[in-house]
Amino acid sequence: MINEFYKARLSGKSVIRELSEYATARGQEIGYENVFDYSLGNPSVPCPQNYTEAVIRLHQQENPMALHGYSPSLGNTAVRETVAKHLERRFGLPYRTEHIFMTSGAAGAIAHAVRLVTKPGDKVLGFAPFFPEYRPYINDSGAQLSIVPADFSNFQINMEAFEKELTPDTQAVLINSPNNPSGVVYSEETIREMANLLYKKQEEFGHDIFLISDEPYREIIFDGKTAPYPAAYYDNTITCYSFSKSMSLPGERIGYLAVCPRATDAEILAVICGQISRGIGHNCPSSTPQLAMAACIDETSDISVYEKNRNILYKEMTAMGFSIVKPGGTFYILPKALEADSVAFCQKAKKYDLILVPADGFGCPGYFRMAYCIDTEKVERSIPVLRKFVESEYGQR
Amino acid sequence: MINEFYKARLSGKSVIRELSEYATARGQEIGYENVFDYSLGNPSVPCPQNYTEAVIRLHQQENPMALHGYSPSLGNTAVRETVAKHLERRFGLPYRTEHIFMTSGAAGAIAHAVRLVTKPGDKVLGFAPFFPEYRPYINDSGAQLSIVPADFSNFQINMEAFEKELTPDTQAVLINSPNNPSGVVYSEETIREMANLLYKKQEEFGHDIFLISDEPYREIIFDGKTAPYPAAYYDNTITCYSFSKSMSLPGERIGYLAVCPRATDAEILAVICGQISRGIGHNCPSSTPQLAMAACIDETSDISVYEKNRNILYKEMTAMGFSIVKPGGTFYILPKALEADSVAFCQKAKKYDLILVPADGFGCPGYFRMAYCIDTEKVERSIPVLRKFVESEYGQR
Repeated sequence: MINEFYKARLSGKSVIRELSEYATARGQEIGYENVFDYSLGNPSVPCPQNYTEAVIRLHQQENPMALHGYSPSLGNTAVRETVAKHLERRFGLPYRTEHIFMTSGAAGAIAHAVRLVTKPGDKVLGFAPFFPEYRPYINDSGAQLSIVPADFSNFQINMEAFEKELTPDTQAVLINSPNNPSGVVYSEETIREMANLLYKKQEEFGHDIFLISDEPYREIIFDGKTAPYPAAYYDNTITCYSFSKSMSLPGERIGYLAVCPRATDAEILAVICGQISRGIGHNCPSSTPQLAMAACIDETSDISVYEKNRNILYKEMTAMGFSIVKPGGTFYILPKALEADSVAFCQKAKKYDLILVPADGFGCPGYFRMAYCIDTEKVERSIPVLRKFVESEYGQR
Repeated sequence: MINEFYKARLSGKSVIRELSEYATARGQEIGYENVFDYSLGNPSVPCPQNYTEAVIRLHQQENPMALHGYSPSLGNTAVRETVAKHLERRFGLPYRTEHIFMTSGAAGAIAHAVRLVTKPGDKVLGFAPFFPEYRPYINDSGAQLSIVPADFSNFQINMEAFEKELTPDTQAVLINSPNNPSGVVYSEETIREMANLLYKKQEEFGHDIFLISDEPYREIIFDGKTAPYPAAYYDNTITCYSFSKSMSLPGERIGYLAVCPRATDAEILAVICGQISRGIGHNCPSSTPQLAMAACIDETSDISVYEKNRNILYKEMTAMGFSIVKPGGTFYILPKALEADSVAFCQKAKKYDLILVPADGFGCPGYFRMAYCIDTEKVERSIPVLRKFVESEYGQR
C-alpha cells in the first residue's frame, strides 16, 4: 500500500517553490526581466571553462568502457585522492584518500553523515537560521533535529541556548557557515567557543559528539577574507561539501563527505558510508562530474558578482530603514521585515513584482530571505522598486 | 557515536568483490589477459556513439547555467516526457510525464519504490535466484525481504511456494526478469500466472499489492525475442529501469522509475517519490546523463556479443557435463557446480585462473554464476581451460 507518511507531505507546500513558480508565471505575463525574482539559490554565473573542457576531452579521448564503467562505491579513487590533497593544501590537515567519500552534492553527504554518526531516536542539534530541508534530511533517517534559537543580533551561535540544548542524548551537531539564509560566516571566535563546548560535553557525557559541517558556500566569501574551517578546530568533524555553488554545477550533483583525519575511527568512517549507500540507493555520484571537477578542483566560478550584489543590497536597503546583519559570504541576505508578519510583508511585495521569501521556515519569523544570485543590472533596477514598495506600504522612513 | 549497525557490516565480505579483486591482483602477476574473470557485471561494449556525441554537443552549445542548473526534483521534465513516450511506443501503455521519476540507476529506483509502497515492518517477497543487494535495498528501508525458493528446473517462479508465502502482510513483490544471476527471462505464462495470483490476493486481503519490477536487463534478450513487460499484465506495477547495462553506462548512474498508468493513485506516485528523495539525499540524477540518454533513448550498445558468448558457454559447458538452464538474456549464466559445495568448487577453479562466483548469496547454493560480459575471444580461450579444470578435478565425464 502507498506509504501514508510520504503521501501526507504532498499537502505541505514549499513556500520557496511556490514563490519561484509564481515568479515564472508572472514572468510569462510581463516579461521575466521585469520580475525581481529573489527566490531561488540557483547560481547565476557559468561553471569554470576548464570543467566544460574536461567533460569534452574525456568524451573525445577516453575509452567509453573505462569512462562510463562502474566507479568504486566510495568514489573514483584518483578523484578521492585529488580531493584529499586539495583539502590538505587548503587547510593543513593530513587528509588522505581514505577520509573522502564522494557524494551526490551536499544533500547526499548529509544523508550519509547523519546515518554514520547517529542511530534512530538520537538527537541532532541545529541552529537557526537554518536551511528548511535539514528537517527531512535528518528526521527521515530516524534521528531527530532540534533547533537552537537564533542570536538575532549577529546570527552567530546563541551559545547560552546551545549549552542548554546540548543534552547527553545529543549525538551530532549540524552547522552551516557561510549560512543559508543569513549569509553570515561564523567567526573564528564562534567556532572556537563551539568546539570548546563540544569537547567539554564529550568528556562530561562520555561519548563522541560529531560535528556535521555543511559547507556548500565555503568558497563564496567577501571582503578578501576566508572562512574558518571547522574541522581545523574540532576533531570529530564530518565536512559535507558540494560543488553546486562554488562551481555553479547544482544539476550535476557532485560533492563529497570528508572525515577529519583526527576524528574517532577516522580511517573507517568513509568505508562505513559505502555500507550506508547500499540501503539508500546512492551507489556513487556520476563518473563524469567526478572526473571533470577533479580536473579543476582549485577553481571556482567568477563569484565576484555576488559580492557586488551584496554591496548594493546591504547599502541601499539599510538606507531604506531595514535592519540587516551584513552577510560575509554566500548569495543570501536576511533582512528584518517591516512588519511582524513576514508572510504578509512578502505578500505585499509581490504587488511590486518583488519576489521575497518569508524566513519563518528558516527558523526566523519576522525576517525574509533574498537570494541575490541574479544579474547585477537587475539588482540595480530592483532598488527603486524596493524603495517604492517600502514607501507606499510602510510610509516615509 | 558511530552507527554500530552499519559498522558491523564491514566484517561481512562481498564474495563478488573479493573474487574481482583477486582477479585484478592475479592479472598483475600473469597478465590480465590470462585471467578468465567471470566475476563482474560491468558491460564490455561501448555506449552508443550518439550518447557521447550528445554530451559533447551539450557542453559545446548549451548555456552552462541552463545545462548545469538545478533540475526539478522529479527529473528534467522534457526527459521524463521522452521516457514516457518511449515506454508508450514500446509497450502500448498510456505513460505520461507524470508517471516517470528519474533516478540514479535501478538502485535508486528500487530505493524509492520500496519506500513508496511499504512502511517499516511490511513484508516484501522476492524470488531466488536473486541479486544479493536486494537485501540491503529492501531491509535498510525498514521493510523485510522474504525469499521464495527457486524452481531449479527452469528458474521461472516457483508458484506453489509463492502462493504459500504470499501472506496478508505482504505489501510488495519484487521480480527481476531477465534475471541476474540466472539469465532466465520469465515467460508470458509465468507473468500471467503471477499477475492472476496477485489480483486474487489483492481482493482476498483487501489491499493493494505492488509489483516492483527491476528490469535493467530488459533490452538484452537473445534469439530475436522480446521479454514480456510485467506492467502490461499487472496494473499495480512500478518498473525500475537503468541504462547501465543496455547503454553500458553504469558509472553515470542514470535510470528511472515508471508508474504503470493503471496503478492505484498512478498520478501521484512519482510526486511522492520526490518527497522520499528529500530524506535519502537523492535530489535527482545528474543533468548531463539525463539529457544525453534522452537524445538516444531508443538505442542500445551493440549487445550481440553477449548472445555470442552465451551460445559458446551454454554449448561447450553442457557438453562438459554441466547442468544449465539456458539463459534467454542478460550476460549471466548459472550452471550447477560439479560438487554440492559451490564455494569449494569455485575455489578449485581459481587454480586454473577461472574466476567463478558461488551462487550461495544469490539464493542458489550448489550453483555458480558466470558474468560473460567479456571479449568473445577470451570466452573461447577459456573453454579448454574449463575442460581441463573439470577433467582434472572431477574426472572424465
